[in-house]
Amino acid sequence: MIPLGPSVDASRLDHLVHVYRDGLLDDTIPFWLRHGADPEYGGILTCLDRDGSLLDSDKGVWQQGRFAWMMATLYNTVERRPEWLAAAGHTLRFIESHCIDADGRMFFHVTRDGLPVRKRRYAFSEAFAAMAFGEHARATASAPSRDMAERLYRAYGTHEPSPPKWSGTRPMKSMSRPMIQIAVCQSLRESIGLACADADIDRAIDEIRRDFMKPDIRCCMEHVGPRGERVDHFDGRLLNPGHAIEGAWFLMWEGQARAAPEYVRAGCDVLDWMWERGWDQVHGGLLYFTDVDGGPVAEYWHDMKFWWPHNEAIIAALLAYQLTGDAKYARMHTMVHDYAYERFPDPEFGEWFGYLHRDGRLSSPLKGNLYKGCFHLPRQQLVCWRIADGIRQGRVGLSGAAR
Amino acid sequence: MIPLGPSVDASRLDHLVHVYRDGLLDDTIPFWLRHGADPEYGGILTCLDRDGSLLDSDKGVWQQGRFAWMMATLYNTVERRPEWLAAAGHTLRFIESHCIDADGRMFFHVTRDGLPVRKRRYAFSEAFAAMAFGEHARATASAPSRDMAERLYRAYGTHEPSPPKWSGTRPMKSMSRPMIQIAVCQSLRESIGLACADADIDRAIDEIRRDFMKPDIRCCMEHVGPRGERVDHFDGRLLNPGHAIEGAWFLMWEGQARAAPEYVRAGCDVLDWMWERGWDQVHGGLLYFTDVDGGPVAEYWHDMKFWWPHNEAIIAALLAYQLTGDAKYARMHTMVHDYAYERFPDPEFGEWFGYLHRDGRLSSPLKGNLYKGCFHLPRQQLVCWRIADGIRQGRVGLSGAAR
Repeated sequence: MIPLGPSVDASRLDHLVHVYRDGLLDDTIPFWLRHGADPEYGGILTCLDRDGSLLDSDKGVWQQGRFAWMMATLYNTVERRPEWLAAAGHTLRFIESHCIDADGRMFFHVTRDGLPVRKRRYAFSEAFAAMAFGEHARATASAPSRDMAERLYRAYGTHEPSPPKWSGTRPMKSMSRPMIQIAVCQSLRESIGLACADADIDRAIDEIRRDFMKPDIRCCMEHVGPRGERVDHFDGRLLNPGHAIEGAWFLMWEGQARAAPEYVRAGCDVLDWMWERGWDQVHGGLLYFTDVDGGPVAEYWHDMKFWWPHNEAIIAALLAYQLTGDAKYARMHTMVHDYAYERFPDPEFGEWFGYLHRDGRLSSPLKGNLYKGCFHLPRQQLVCWRIADGIRQGRVGLSGAAR
Repeated sequence: MIPLGPSVDASRLDHLVHVYRDGLLDDTIPFWLRHGADPEYGGILTCLDRDGSLLDSDKGVWQQGRFAWMMATLYNTVERRPEWLAAAGHTLRFIESHCIDADGRMFFHVTRDGLPVRKRRYAFSEAFAAMAFGEHARATASAPSRDMAERLYRAYGTHEPSPPKWSGTRPMKSMSRPMIQIAVCQSLRESIGLACADADIDRAIDEIRRDFMKPDIRCCMEHVGPRGERVDHFDGRLLNPGHAIEGAWFLMWEGQARAAPEYVRAGCDVLDWMWERGWDQVHGGLLYFTDVDGGPVAEYWHDMKFWWPHNEAIIAALLAYQLTGDAKYARMHTMVHDYAYERFPDPEFGEWFGYLHRDGRLSSPLKGNLYKGCFHLPRQQLVCWRIADGIRQGRVGLSGAAR
């Protein structure tokens, strides 16, 4: 067993378990069930103001799948509370009835009652919905949910963005695609025993290591050419450190699940590199975008502090600590946990704010929109509760960590 | 003659003429000719760092048309400098050779040597290029440039975004379309005597007054339903005060050109309303986005201070003062002029920064990208030089103002 670093002693671990578990069960989930669940049409309303009041009745399809996944996962892994399964169920019915186009592809944005507003070229709606149907199948042994999970996973895996908005002049690919594939496969392996999960994950990790990870410059690229070429234009130079760090913990998670130290090492490399590139030395927290060469970024909001990169970094640092025992990850976890928990939680109405300026001042008080819903925060709370509890019980190192 | 307000006395006018004229001729235009003009392939490179060094060699097609329009306009209205006409000419050749697709529609984004990277659903590339070919025809009496201007204007006027990304569930229209039509018609009327200009402008102004201007709430909407319905969702509530204020001076300009006091009044109404909604009472300057009901805005960068809304408000306030003599517009002009000139100009390398945080701190040092080029600032400098000089010479009020 790897000795615990000095920063995570027993009382800190007790504190973390309390913060994550109680935050999840007493704050985050009640906030969304109380204010967001839509008993009239099913599904979840996420465009909410600070106090939970409705700002916009439209529904983001990503958020439908993510909410249903979260509810069913809680039901499967925390406690079999009927209201959680019911929330998953009415959201999946909304998805089935209203969020799938005639061609089998899913929409991105629908009205409260389920009329389509927007469809996008990328298939992330399908990815999140697949995860949700998988957890529902695990909860209920429903064959249709299982079939739907597999069908949507295939739709995600085989989808090529079409018609191309960008011409063939400068083909580029995004790390998002293999990265989200890893997460979906990990979820479906757990929920429905997806047969192709290990092989698909191995392929996705190979692609990330081969084409996106650049050890020579200590960087995980966000966009590269088809064979991993660096593209010296604004888009090609743009880094999203929090996004790469989310990918980092997917890699470590796979290393843990498969007892594959090289995957843990790859995840720790990405975490190390993108922490160096993304941590704001002036104000703390993770910058949203940076440039691979340190130059100006073309996106206006490049230096804002968004909530979700902090959720992902909190997971990645704690998991790296559990798997390696390296005290630097305990310190990293403390830095990002403390930064985030001092600034993002709303002390008056609960849940987290989403958007801060670089110096930590609040930019927008809203609690959700088509991009922010019931996902990054509660997933972090659930995953980190389990990790902190595992460390507390001595499950550390690659073989000791809980799957 | 309307008496001048107390805020714009003769010495202030002398100062303004100096700031605008010398800024245009000694700073802005030399910056872009020195750093941006591309002698190798033609056209203008706008993705420049603070010191003018190249950040990205890609070319925005909007910026090609805008630069060529600016150069040819200077040649036609300021001085017949051969280098200005040459810059317009090599940019128009680049546009003709590389920026027009086989279907007659224009691209949005091309490589330095003119290979297409991106095409968009909207036809603003066509609008700016039409203005540029028109001014070139005026400078050279070139029949092909005149024909191209008319053809591209027709392409803009008849273009319907297609294929629709948004389904028919919630059709909306943007103020941009009639507003840019006014500007293009005004330009082509001046340069090539476009025959349909007055009628097309009247139709566009009718649409803005009927569907976008809401006197009951003192607001000019950015997006409405097809018949001017207010749409109570994030997109429908989103206001862009600087954009509406740009439209305000197009309306006033038309009132001046046609001796139509109702157009001047409409322009002043939009300016008054959107100043009330956009001016930041805490830090000064114009907020980028606001919500019609005062609620949170979904866009992350809502409270930033961009350069161009300030250029447009500087024009609108000074023109409103020239046309009405109302001292409140002199005060408004002084407020926005002083705010902008204290913060946006780069004292070291010249030209203006583009992106400030709400409190005026610099967000990005870059001088240009696909959206920021040689347009809003030099147009403001040229237009306001002429207005300030006109006021100095007593050309005030609707009939006295120079066309």
